[in-house]
Amino acid sequence: MISCSLQRMEDKIKTFSRFGDTGKGGITRLSLSPEALAARAEFQKRMEAIGATVVTDDMANMYATVPGTENLPAILAGSHLDSVKQGGNYDGVLGVLTAMEAVETIVKENIPHKHPITVMVWTNEEGARFEPAMMSSGVICNKFGKEAMLASEAKDIPGYTFAQALEESGFLGSKENRMSADKYVALVELHIEQGPVLEQEGVEIGVVEGVCGMVNYEFAFVGQADHAGTTPMKYRKDALYAAAKTIQYLHDELDELDSKLVYTTGKISAHPNIHTIIPDEVKFTLDARHQNPEVIKQVVEIIKKIPSEVEKCKASYEEAWSRKTVDFSSELVKYVEKSAAEFGYSSKRMYSGAGHDAQYVVDMIPSTMIFVPSVDGHSHCELEYTSVEDCLKGANVMMQTILHIDKQ
Amino acid sequence: MISCSLQRMEDKIKTFSRFGDTGKGGITRLSLSPEALAARAEFQKRMEAIGATVVTDDMANMYATVPGTENLPAILAGSHLDSVKQGGNYDGVLGVLTAMEAVETIVKENIPHKHPITVMVWTNEEGARFEPAMMSSGVICNKFGKEAMLASEAKDIPGYTFAQALEESGFLGSKENRMSADKYVALVELHIEQGPVLEQEGVEIGVVEGVCGMVNYEFAFVGQADHAGTTPMKYRKDALYAAAKTIQYLHDELDELDSKLVYTTGKISAHPNIHTIIPDEVKFTLDARHQNPEVIKQVVEIIKKIPSEVEKCKASYEEAWSRKTVDFSSELVKYVEKSAAEFGYSSKRMYSGAGHDAQYVVDMIPSTMIFVPSVDGHSHCELEYTSVEDCLKGANVMMQTILHIDKQ
Repeated sequence: MISCSLQRMEDKIKTFSRFGDTGKGGITRLSLSPEALAARAEFQKRMEAIGATVVTDDMANMYATVPGTENLPAILAGSHLDSVKQGGNYDGVLGVLTAMEAVETIVKENIPHKHPITVMVWTNEEGARFEPAMMSSGVICNKFGKEAMLASEAKDIPGYTFAQALEESGFLGSKENRMSADKYVALVELHIEQGPVLEQEGVEIGVVEGVCGMVNYEFAFVGQADHAGTTPMKYRKDALYAAAKTIQYLHDELDELDSKLVYTTGKISAHPNIHTIIPDEVKFTLDARHQNPEVIKQVVEIIKKIPSEVEKCKASYEEAWSRKTVDFSSELVKYVEKSAAEFGYSSKRMYSGAGHDAQYVVDMIPSTMIFVPSVDGHSHCELEYTSVEDCLKGANVMMQTILHIDKQ
Repeated sequence: MISCSLQRMEDKIKTFSRFGDTGKGGITRLSLSPEALAARAEFQKRMEAIGATVVTDDMANMYATVPGTENLPAILAGSHLDSVKQGGNYDGVLGVLTAMEAVETIVKENIPHKHPITVMVWTNEEGARFEPAMMSSGVICNKFGKEAMLASEAKDIPGYTFAQALEESGFLGSKENRMSADKYVALVELHIEQGPVLEQEGVEIGVVEGVCGMVNYEFAFVGQADHAGTTPMKYRKDALYAAAKTIQYLHDELDELDSKLVYTTGKISAHPNIHTIIPDEVKFTLDARHQNPEVIKQVVEIIKKIPSEVEKCKASYEEAWSRKTVDFSSELVKYVEKSAAEFGYSSKRMYSGAGHDAQYVVDMIPSTMIFVPSVDGHSHCELEYTSVEDCLKGANVMMQTILHIDKQ
């Protein structure tokens, strides 16, 4: 079987790691920053070198297309080039680089394909500079209004909008170039797992069936701010103790549900947050994710059992937001699984706990994702790492999946 | 028995409540602010009107002395006029006003006394503008170095030092005017309880035996910051869960100790404190107070039983600071108790959980304190309240205690 090139894969990773290099093993490449624009230019240069035509749409998403032998809609593969602040060299960019390597192999090895193949770069997936995350796929797939997105202000420069960044980028294109169901037949996005499962279980390829549904709740406890030295314990209404008790309750109850459930109390605040004053208001968040909506319902039932008074404090909660489980195209999922098997790679079906552009795209065209292992599960940090051998396996599965789609 | 005047007591409270009036029931009268200087001028005017001689020392502490019939050291009574931001009309100032009223009654009723009586105003007890709290009593009683205090910067004006505020106050006096053991025979400080015990138990006067010893600990838990969606529960090192478990452990264990123990986990922080990331570092504080050093030792023993690993997170703790229990003069405590009984007021011996200037002064001259009830235990807020009737009872006990000291 024809394989992608380890040497070229390594060169691509090394080259793109220089755009925004923090000098400490990672990158800061915020969307449409000079570093991100340099990475886009390199992408364009390399794709044109293998015969691709590059266009951009009105959200500056990039589409680099090599022709097929027939006049058919194209097969899309890609991800994003932007990173969070002090992020790693793999989140997003690896989905672009493996798609580039797959197409370069197809071109250089003259592997016949009927459909054109488009390598895509989504603008502002991270939302690290301009909120929200998955901004451009959200606009194109009608999740967000474009005007509101254009008005999004940079976190680092007050008053500097996403619209201005787009204008100044040099990559602003035409709305008619947007991805659409008539022009594209399928999307395949490769991503690092961003979790420890593949590595821990010794599995080479994650076959991504969908993206977990989730709920986010905010809890608030209101007690009484009194003096730490003068208020006997029996008269206290300690909002932090009420919150700690509730965190323990949530662990006790949620741990009884399906073992694939993940939940996180990531954010906490206390008022007045002074060591000599009993806290009168404490808030914390709960993020819970599972592929099965029934399990998410059980989570909500457990939340609803929290009494209105905990340790003499007023307890309340509200849903901040939620997202339904997204299922990828079962046909494409099978192609990914089959492609891994054809290369002799071990694989595991799984749901993504994190959000990705593909979850919006699947509403417009059949989509799926490929995961490769993340060492120690690290992501969104400079420790993020996937060996070049594992990246190559991802590129091979990407190439083979594209070729299966081409033949369908 | 001669009583202080309810009408004069009420007038004093109303008058001084205007200096820094927030318009919402409380005051903001930061040390040496224009509002505090106006209150000092009013104090001086009123004391001079009843025949007192007013001097200040090098920390701007004020001493308003009415002569006795013999050439003896003076009896001190007083507290502070400064408040926290948006504080109440009673914390500190009531100790000055009841001393003023006691002396005014003694003067107007011609009650004979051998010792001169000095009503005192301490500078910067709260430390709300210039840290630390109890600054001037600390300097005079050799707890703090004066130079470091003079360099303390205002929280509201960068670079503006306590030394400058002193110079500009018009109340800077001579070091030789400082309180000392040769010039003063005893100190009596009246204060609001700042807690709910007297009110809840229906007791009119708190006979303060001393100030509770305390320890302050800081706890830290270090886990691993991972993605909320991609990290299965079994691989997590959640520092907030470790902290919540430890807060529960502390409650479970400390609640078994003496019922007079008070402990507070007032301050908590989480890193990175983002709802989609498992916290990798959580810190919280513990403040524990009790009059008996043995109980404080037991608290420390319980802290030392916390394992070095909690929920797979590295757990650590350190003592931030501590204070030994301060015992007031048993002779003076008896005078306070006896004075309350002579007026027919119910009283209760208790230790102060909060810190007061008297706890430093007791190292130099015999000292004690009188507590009056705080409605709902509120303090350091605009809700702080003590009825004028309760204030008058405090003034009567203050007057009677001064007269007992005079006779000893």
